[in-house]
Amino acid sequence: MKIDLNADLGESFGIYQIGQDDELLKIVSSANVACGFHAGDYTTIKRTVKLAKEHGVSVGAHPGFLDLQGFGRRRIDLNPDEVYDLVLYQLGAFYGFAKVEGVEVQHVKPHGALYNMANLNYEIANAIAQAVYDFNSDIKLFGLCNSFLIKAGKKLGLTVIREAFADRTYTSDGLLMPRGDKNAVKYRNEEIKEQVLNIALNQCVQSADGKWVSLEADTICLHGDSHTALDHAVMIRQVLKGKGIEITSFQ
Amino acid sequence: MKIDLNADLGESFGIYQIGQDDELLKIVSSANVACGFHAGDYTTIKRTVKLAKEHGVSVGAHPGFLDLQGFGRRRIDLNPDEVYDLVLYQLGAFYGFAKVEGVEVQHVKPHGALYNMANLNYEIANAIAQAVYDFNSDIKLFGLCNSFLIKAGKKLGLTVIREAFADRTYTSDGLLMPRGDKNAVKYRNEEIKEQVLNIALNQCVQSADGKWVSLEADTICLHGDSHTALDHAVMIRQVLKGKGIEITSFQ
Amino acid sequence: MKIDLNADLGESFGIYQIGQDDELLKIVSSANVACGFHAGDYTTIKRTVKLAKEHGVSVGAHPGFLDLQGFGRRRIDLNPDEVYDLVLYQLGAFYGFAKVEGVEVQHVKPHGALYNMANLNYEIANAIAQAVYDFNSDIKLFGLCNSFLIKAGKKLGLTVIREAFADRTYTSDGLLMPRGDKNAVKYRNEEIKEQVLNIALNQCVQSADGKWVSLEADTICLHGDSHTALDHAVMIRQVLKGKGIEITSFQ
Amino acid sequence: MKIDLNADLGESFGIYQIGQDDELLKIVSSANVACGFHAGDYTTIKRTVKLAKEHGVSVGAHPGFLDLQGFGRRRIDLNPDEVYDLVLYQLGAFYGFAKVEGVEVQHVKPHGALYNMANLNYEIANAIAQAVYDFNSDIKLFGLCNSFLIKAGKKLGLTVIREAFADRTYTSDGLLMPRGDKNAVKYRNEEIKEQVLNIALNQCVQSADGKWVSLEADTICLHGDSHTALDHAVMIRQVLKGKGIEITSFQ
Repeated sequence: MKIDLNADLGESFGIYQIGQDDELLKIVSSANVACGFHAGDYTTIKRTVKLAKEHGVSVGAHPGFLDLQGFGRRRIDLNPDEVYDLVLYQLGAFYGFAKVEGVEVQHVKPHGALYNMANLNYEIANAIAQAVYDFNSDIKLFGLCNSFLIKAGKKLGLTVIREAFADRTYTSDGLLMPRGDKNAVKYRNEEIKEQVLNIALNQCVQSADGKWVSLEADTICLHGDSHTALDHAVMIRQVLKGKGIEITSFQ
Repeated sequence: MKIDLNADLGESFGIYQIGQDDELLKIVSSANVACGFHAGDYTTIKRTVKLAKEHGVSVGAHPGFLDLQGFGRRRIDLNPDEVYDLVLYQLGAFYGFAKVEGVEVQHVKPHGALYNMANLNYEIANAIAQAVYDFNSDIKLFGLCNSFLIKAGKKLGLTVIREAFADRTYTSDGLLMPRGDKNAVKYRNEEIKEQVLNIALNQCVQSADGKWVSLEADTICLHGDSHTALDHAVMIRQVLKGKGIEITSFQ
Repeated sequence: MKIDLNADLGESFGIYQIGQDDELLKIVSSANVACGFHAGDYTTIKRTVKLAKEHGVSVGAHPGFLDLQGFGRRRIDLNPDEVYDLVLYQLGAFYGFAKVEGVEVQHVKPHGALYNMANLNYEIANAIAQAVYDFNSDIKLFGLCNSFLIKAGKKLGLTVIREAFADRTYTSDGLLMPRGDKNAVKYRNEEIKEQVLNIALNQCVQSADGKWVSLEADTICLHGDSHTALDHAVMIRQVLKGKGIEITSFQ
Repeated sequence: MKIDLNADLGESFGIYQIGQDDELLKIVSSANVACGFHAGDYTTIKRTVKLAKEHGVSVGAHPGFLDLQGFGRRRIDLNPDEVYDLVLYQLGAFYGFAKVEGVEVQHVKPHGALYNMANLNYEIANAIAQAVYDFNSDIKLFGLCNSFLIKAGKKLGLTVIREAFADRTYTSDGLLMPRGDKNAVKYRNEEIKEQVLNIALNQCVQSADGKWVSLEADTICLHGDSHTALDHAVMIRQVLKGKGIEITSFQ
């Protein structure tokens, strides 16, 4: 058995150095690298790709809305054509650094509000999938399990990578509880461990209202924006290894 | 005999529609397409590449400083490493749209203040040339005749395209009179015609102080930001055609 | 009888010169000046305030979302606290130029998507009104007739200026038909004339479904982004003058 | 005897939280608040002004170039008219938050590359001073001792506040050694203490080549961007207090 672990990296910007990229690169198998719109200036992209390569971690483009102040978490009403162009621009820019460093662009995963829109809106999902497909149909598309993004990617013939969250509560539709909800995020180690194992071994999670929901995940998303998050990431890796599950990317 | 004609295109931004791209694409053989930093949002890039393709005009990336308000004409003191990353980011972003449209990135030509710095500063010139080379060594590098940019590109083994200006006055070093100088730009049709023919037929120009300066140019830069400029562009094309000189890009 | 005519001005940005400010300043009594976020760099603000002063036209701040590419017309999900800060920042910046030029900031009118959100969402409306009130409670607040923005301003004790549109179709609630609707905009001179006179003389308009809706307007918004728009602006002024209605701002 | 201590504050941006504002506000008497161009989004400005008020610290606008990635430290070639507008825009924006919070704008101090240009270039210095003067001639202008900025402010009739640095090496002209120089910054506690006392008690410093240079300073600039810097700030305050020198702003 095997599974991928992914995290968002390269989110620094100029003098603003954030994240724990060095630590996370020892844990994850895939890195989603910010592309300069919601985070990650061009120098940060170069450094991050280089660092991921040194750690043998696969890299993907992590495009977001042009909103540094809001860190790409604020919805901006672009139409599907604009979303296509937005993603293509950032994917190309990221590709430049991967090319120069001699690594493949393994995947594309949209960020923040763009990710949420892609999960719930078929036209947006399709625009993103199409941009990836047109650029290079070998690139894999990361999307939330059961989302429109996964459906759109599949329909085009892209390899889709279904993503699950170890520390987020699920609805009975197999989607994420909105962040606004007070139970949206799980903090207790035991809860997180349990959910990880359910995802990895049983392909299911227990939703907020107690139902068991099917969840066939290829990758688990780790967060890196707090010390707890890093502790959780370490724990999740250990739990998986402890069950003999191989942690590996898709290259 | 043959020569290339190039112009800056795709300089619109959002609702701000400028330039005479449709007209210029009937005249030039190569288009320098703005990449989103000094002009040209992602939607404009897509439209411009598509339009150039329809006209059979070769396209190149035209990276500039991140300064929309100053249109990339204000010098910003980046160090060579930053310039490398700045160019690579924009080149990659542009490549995305060329890829999707099925056209090659023929060349890279830096814009405005970045172009001027690259002509006069070897380290900046070298950073630009290296970014192009590392991305794809088949891409051609446009630079001012006799400039450091041409020297840097040659040294790396890039195909360099030496550029001359029909309507700019030259110094006795074969470089451009700074724009601040009152004689920097030629406006009279006869002067421009004469300079074009000297460039195309005799590989030389007469400098501001009357000296004949050697100028081996592969391409002539046309402007498109005024009606006079468009008239001059038409005239230059006719003058060259009248002498039996073929106008063609490098693909 | 009297009424104010207002238009959005100062929407150029760097080399991107748009709008017909010189012409419109002969027609309107109030100018809404872009504040640098959706349009109008700092140099444009200075020039516009100066020009308005020369024409004896009152000026107001016209804050919008930070979205030059989308011209402030794309909804961005800011929360009310962020909207307060967004408006206060732009109002202060605009005030600087008014102060230096020796003119009063007559009013604040939110732009584009921010205007639409303020009309329909009470919390957003209230955040805008509060920012204006806290900055200077003598500044007037422009808002759509019957909107939450007008209600919010009134409640705080601001002088509210109710705005009507000569060329937009109304719903039976006295609000604007969304721009997406095919009948949202009126183009025929006769229709526009009729609506202007209904607004100015009878305080009502006929809605899309034929109902008469009450509309007590203090100002009519003119557009300036096309030659038709300018022709309409001239016509509207003439129609009002022809009925002996004085065109005047609120200073 | 008395002297002011100032530091740059409010340099966070969105999720990027930097600096030690809470600690520094216990030490300084004046805070230079970033205005959104090189650092400090609008929400950060509001929070910083509020915090400074709570600590009884006077606030000033700290305008810089529009260059978040370079933190305003990269020279951008604006002409004096553009600098005037750049400063006026940011000063006005900052004033909005001061007004709402009920505090005065005590001063303006340009940031980074703009500060350096203002010290060495009279036209730039004059543009900044004029913008401050035109906005409100009661606002004080902070500038490096012996600089053009101080001269320009004085000539216009502004109250100028001459600034010295505790941890920077001086040239024999009484200006700062460029940051590129290996001796530009002093790190040893004893050196810094000695320079502080020379500035505060004797109105002079010893330059890099051993000469004593006159330096009549009204304020000392503290840095806050490292833990050493905070330690130095604490030490400088203690040294001054130990000599019975009162630490106070200009309000």
